[in-house]
Amino acid sequence: MIRPLALLFLPVLRVILLTFFDGKYLTGRHFDKGVGGYVWALRSAWAKNILRLGVPMPWPTALTCVISNPKNIKFHPDDLNNFQSPGTYFQNFSAKIVLGKGVYIAPNVGLITANHVLDDLDSHDSGKEIHIGDGCWIGMGAVVLPGVHLGPRTIVAAGAVVTSSFPEGGGVIGGVPAKLLRSLDTPRRGK
Amino acid sequence: MIRPLALLFLPVLRVILLTFFDGKYLTGRHFDKGVGGYVWALRSAWAKNILRLGVPMPWPTALTCVISNPKNIKFHPDDLNNFQSPGTYFQNFSAKIVLGKGVYIAPNVGLITANHVLDDLDSHDSGKEIHIGDGCWIGMGAVVLPGVHLGPRTIVAAGAVVTSSFPEGGGVIGGVPAKLLRSLDTPRRGK
Amino acid sequence: MIRPLALLFLPVLRVILLTFFDGKYLTGRHFDKGVGGYVWALRSAWAKNILRLGVPMPWPTALTCVISNPKNIKFHPDDLNNFQSPGTYFQNFSAKIVLGKGVYIAPNVGLITANHVLDDLDSHDSGKEIHIGDGCWIGMGAVVLPGVHLGPRTIVAAGAVVTSSFPEGGGVIGGVPAKLLRSLDTPRRGK
Repeated sequence: MIRPLALLFLPVLRVILLTFFDGKYLTGRHFDKGVGGYVWALRSAWAKNILRLGVPMPWPTALTCVISNPKNIKFHPDDLNNFQSPGTYFQNFSAKIVLGKGVYIAPNVGLITANHVLDDLDSHDSGKEIHIGDGCWIGMGAVVLPGVHLGPRTIVAAGAVVTSSFPEGGGVIGGVPAKLLRSLDTPRRGK
Repeated sequence: MIRPLALLFLPVLRVILLTFFDGKYLTGRHFDKGVGGYVWALRSAWAKNILRLGVPMPWPTALTCVISNPKNIKFHPDDLNNFQSPGTYFQNFSAKIVLGKGVYIAPNVGLITANHVLDDLDSHDSGKEIHIGDGCWIGMGAVVLPGVHLGPRTIVAAGAVVTSSFPEGGGVIGGVPAKLLRSLDTPRRGK
Repeated sequence: MIRPLALLFLPVLRVILLTFFDGKYLTGRHFDKGVGGYVWALRSAWAKNILRLGVPMPWPTALTCVISNPKNIKFHPDDLNNFQSPGTYFQNFSAKIVLGKGVYIAPNVGLITANHVLDDLDSHDSGKEIHIGDGCWIGMGAVVLPGVHLGPRTIVAAGAVVTSSFPEGGGVIGGVPAKLLRSLDTPRRGK
């Protein structure tokens, strides 16, 4: 997929991109198996670092992907795609978000680690880590609340509001608030 | 509503806009009955074609309207307003989205034609067409899932997640997952 | 938090910002107790007034905060933070939105004052005011519908669709449609 000209050009582009991003994020499948990662990086650097339309992050992010604290999130560079999803919000100023390998996060998803204190909305409570296991998929518009742990291969249906943990994984959860809809080992109803 | 000066100016503007957009979309009520369509086109060309803050489309779209594949969507130019809704996501890289005439799509709505394959999230399944009938209205934040067909005059309540078809139309659907709330022929409860 | 240099620089910056914004909004805690308000104002003026990537408002707003009619909303300048929330939509072209003091509005929230007329989607009905009481908090992705009045200290859970009023306040509401989940005087279940 990468043609000879690109092979000459990409190292130069890489040097330029390293002035904007931390090199440890400019690796993995999006940079090795095509030029997708480079396109994201160029877009991100242009929109956030140069045009200043958002707060620049140490890795490429979509214009409408908002991350409170880039130091409070853990993910594998192969999963950079999650930060290209539009309308996402990673609220992690006080507690970590840990994303397992092969996680997919859809547009307009929110991961919220700290609520407002109910007796004093001007303050946030201390925050609780969110852990999303390997191979989870968070559907469009879902919101994951503080302290939630999702086990590997948890599928969160679109529009779900995840208020409690599903540490066992291997299931589809959905609804407001999210409940276990089916185990991934169980065949679908009616099919 | 269109003053004489505009009548002189608009044809020139139109020639410029045709360098960015397909002319078949620069028609209909938003261009005939006022200058709204021209304003959208100027904004869209500026943000996406010139400033490159999003992927340019063959018709005017809001900065935060994301469409995977402009070839996989069918709509009437009178309904260009739907693509000015902020935060919308038309995921149609592998299957068509067909919008009937007079459809209204609110902000933050998602129309998703292809899910991830549950056994291999890195892949998408083959995708199933979404058909939205004439005169439907999709409320804010609703998500419509693969293969859904909505009959004419289906009203989708805000925040609904539409997992199954309502081909009969003429009703209000809502909830997570969406269920028929009332037929449009039935008077509202308490009214 | 404001250092001597800033104290010299801020009055100059203020004069510049007054060419973009109404001075009555450039006051309150975000301007007195730090420079946060100035940063928002610079970002907003750059993105909306100068780069024209959104419709400029008389007060600082995030790039992805959309307000139909700035004259139809009432709020205290201390609460300017609500308009920095990404993906929010204040649909108030025909009826007022009144926000009490100390209200918090999360990302991707919609406040909708006018529905489409069900028999003629091309028109909107006349609109009904939305009143959000002092100290309310609207969670991420929630949508508040026309005519809703929320009493003081109403907490709206993430993803809620608020179709009816909760004028008594002092409670947590959530779900689709939103129902009273608990009073704030009642201890949480299991705690």
